Amino acid sequence: MPFEGRLPESTSSAALPRGFRAGAATMDIKASGRPDVAIVAVEAGLPDASVAAVFTSNALIAAPLLLSQQHLRALSPPGGGRHGWSRGVVCTAGCANAATGPDGLADQERIAKDFARGLGTDRERTLAMSTGVIGTRLPADRLGPEIAQLAREGLSDGPSALAAAAEAMCTTDSRAKSAAVDLTLPDRSGRPVPVTVSGIAKGVGMIHPQMATMLAILLTDADVDPMVLHGLLRPVAARTWDQLTVDGDTSTNDTVFLFASGASGSVPVRAGSPEGETLRDGIEAVARSLARQQAADGEGATTLITCQVSGATDDAAARAVARSVVASSLVKAAVHGRDPNWGRIAAAAGNARLARATVLEAAGLSVEEARRRAGAPVHLDPARLRIAICGRDVFDGIPLPFERAAVRALMDASEVIVRLDLGLGGGRGEAFGCDLTEAYVAENAEYTT
Amino acid sequence: MPFEGRLPESTSSAALPRGFRAGAATMDIKASGRPDVAIVAVEAGLPDASVAAVFTSNALIAAPLLLSQQHLRALSPPGGGRHGWSRGVVCTAGCANAATGPDGLADQERIAKDFARGLGTDRERTLAMSTGVIGTRLPADRLGPEIAQLAREGLSDGPSALAAAAEAMCTTDSRAKSAAVDLTLPDRSGRPVPVTVSGIAKGVGMIHPQMATMLAILLTDADVDPMVLHGLLRPVAARTWDQLTVDGDTSTNDTVFLFASGASGSVPVRAGSPEGETLRDGIEAVARSLARQQAADGEGATTLITCQVSGATDDAAARAVARSVVASSLVKAAVHGRDPNWGRIAAAAGNARLARATVLEAAGLSVEEARRRAGAPVHLDPARLRIAICGRDVFDGIPLPFERAAVRALMDASEVIVRLDLGLGGGRGEAFGCDLTEAYVAENAEYTT
Repeated sequence: MPFEGRLPESTSSAALPRGFRAGAATMDIKASGRPDVAIVAVEAGLPDASVAAVFTSNALIAAPLLLSQQHLRALSPPGGGRHGWSRGVVCTAGCANAATGPDGLADQERIAKDFARGLGTDRERTLAMSTGVIGTRLPADRLGPEIAQLAREGLSDGPSALAAAAEAMCTTDSRAKSAAVDLTLPDRSGRPVPVTVSGIAKGVGMIHPQMATMLAILLTDADVDPMVLHGLLRPVAARTWDQLTVDGDTSTNDTVFLFASGASGSVPVRAGSPEGETLRDGIEAVARSLARQQAADGEGATTLITCQVSGATDDAAARAVARSVVASSLVKAAVHGRDPNWGRIAAAAGNARLARATVLEAAGLSVEEARRRAGAPVHLDPARLRIAICGRDVFDGIPLPFERAAVRALMDASEVIVRLDLGLGGGRGEAFGCDLTEAYVAENAEYTT
Repeated sequence: MPFEGRLPESTSSAALPRGFRAGAATMDIKASGRPDVAIVAVEAGLPDASVAAVFTSNALIAAPLLLSQQHLRALSPPGGGRHGWSRGVVCTAGCANAATGPDGLADQERIAKDFARGLGTDRERTLAMSTGVIGTRLPADRLGPEIAQLAREGLSDGPSALAAAAEAMCTTDSRAKSAAVDLTLPDRSGRPVPVTVSGIAKGVGMIHPQMATMLAILLTDADVDPMVLHGLLRPVAARTWDQLTVDGDTSTNDTVFLFASGASGSVPVRAGSPEGETLRDGIEAVARSLARQQAADGEGATTLITCQVSGATDDAAARAVARSVVASSLVKAAVHGRDPNWGRIAAAAGNARLARATVLEAAGLSVEEARRRAGAPVHLDPARLRIAICGRDVFDGIPLPFERAAVRALMDASEVIVRLDLGLGGGRGEAFGCDLTEAYVAENAEYTT
């Protein structure tokens, strides 16, 4: 059951693409006293960056998301608050500013006003994201001036600037998450110019398809129109963050922003062009790396679980099966115990349902087809199903004899790869999760997070 | 936020309704050496009972379910394998006989042949259910004759016969589960006669809407045609077992059989009649009690979580919200830690999706409406949402001040009731789950179950 990658290699560096500045500071939102405010913004003197966004599918949308959607709509009404132009984003960590009612939105507006003043722009050209405890208020009166000052004086393009922002985004994360790829695109005269795609993200609980308490900021110096940028981001999110699960919960604050400064001097990227495909693959490589880092750092987790499915009737079905396997509490607990329990894997696969309509649309289905198929069970034929754990075949229509101790030893690793071939067609997809541990329970039983 | 019950009181007794016999034995399927085969059958000399069934929604259907569906179809083709006539059911525990291919089905056929011989009937008039490890084979050659003997000589209507069957169904259950209600229905001349509805069930892992590694046998001595019986069972299952979750996993073996012997002498129950409503409420009271016992005995659980939702646009939406709350790992962990974390409850409610089409149909929607709405997000208005934990209001559009220590003390109980009022309409529904504990993880990491 081979499962080849088609994406460029990413590194875990946090290089800033040209045209961006970043910074972070400690403003005492987190009780721990660690850095808790991050800013990523366009370099002074350059025009606004184009931006595309993906927000939570939770019905209770947090104040920073409502504000960001308002701002994007104000400048680009046809985008429905999902793409537009922006000078930068401020991320506050330690307080989600969710379920805080009209007062919470007013707090976020106050912060946006000060942030815009610090950047020397209009409020509508700023974006916000936030993560942390639900139901507590941001100390907006105190934060506003401090954020204005950070925006005015604290941003740099130094080698550690984006890494510092990644660190400040974290809540229960045990480590900061970043990734980057280097690409080559032509400039207007056809000469190759280097283009960078970078990303930072935080996890690590309340994470489930589709989208989760996770925040990510992606940056590129490619030159891309907002609507084209959104067209690149949605299918990437469908193959990466929509396939990420830590605990089956979906948060009120999930946000991904993808900014493009155009500062590389590369040709404007058109929808459906070869340049668009190169850039999309670069964005996907960064997003996939961040999603895998988020899964590996799931609350209490010791092991990344990657499920790769081939032979499905189509990619949407393959992704649904992969997601169902990594979301199964019993599979997660079995991986924690290094138990090659293929029966639980088979049962989880048999439980797969196609994702909601918007995710199916992002995967390339028509609106009508996506609505028709959302929630439908995935067809499986037990007689054609094959399962391998860590490269060892354990089921092929019937249980296969295998050396249990050997597979247990292979599972004693930082990543366990489960492969399923459904034997029905050419559809392929993968999903990312982590083991379920006593530490997850202890962490979430003992603290309000 | 009142949430009144409309069902008759049930007891946890395991009284056999008239016309049935039960028995159990140890046949060394379970490694523990505990009883592992249960039989419930119609008393010799009486006609076959009518029966209605609900089976797993998992795409990988275990051999005993395939066999039962074949048998029901053989006698009543129009029922599609979901209702018909039967003399009895044999339940084997310790081996699921799932993912065992054609050989596994042959094992089940061999057992059915012997079971039928023991009952003195045809193979097609028997049913089977099974629970335990996936992927292992039943020792059919050895079991067949022993099951024939149990069917022939080991059944009784003694006071402990059904309780012994309930005990033999268990796997990781810490206690057997049973419930019964006494009803009164008219006989053919209008005089009141006593009617009993009894049920036994097992849990307790791989349990999730819709249906789970759970088995249940319901018995009544009312006189009900198979199709009418199925019409009573499906909406009951939608309000009880489809609202039960332990760990989000759905098994290959979930089965509910409802048998009606007619031995009470009560009038034949017609669809939509007052007698049908009385009987349906009785069946629902037993099913609800069993589902609550299953949730309370979830693997590693210490606390039953009941979520009751009112004010939804309709019952299907209320049930979806209730299910989303009790299925949330973060809510489950918070209850374990006695943490009145309403933010996680609100986020889980915001994440609710309507159930699959067949469950919505069972809840009374038309096929077309059910298909249209399956998987759709539930509408919530944060400004109208109210949340109470153990009777204390904690959120009413905005966070309410409450005495944290007092609510923590109230949560230190065997059942935690979470109530939500959505403020949007008259829809109501409830769901049953349990806390997530270190013991769940340990149990499922360390053993192949």
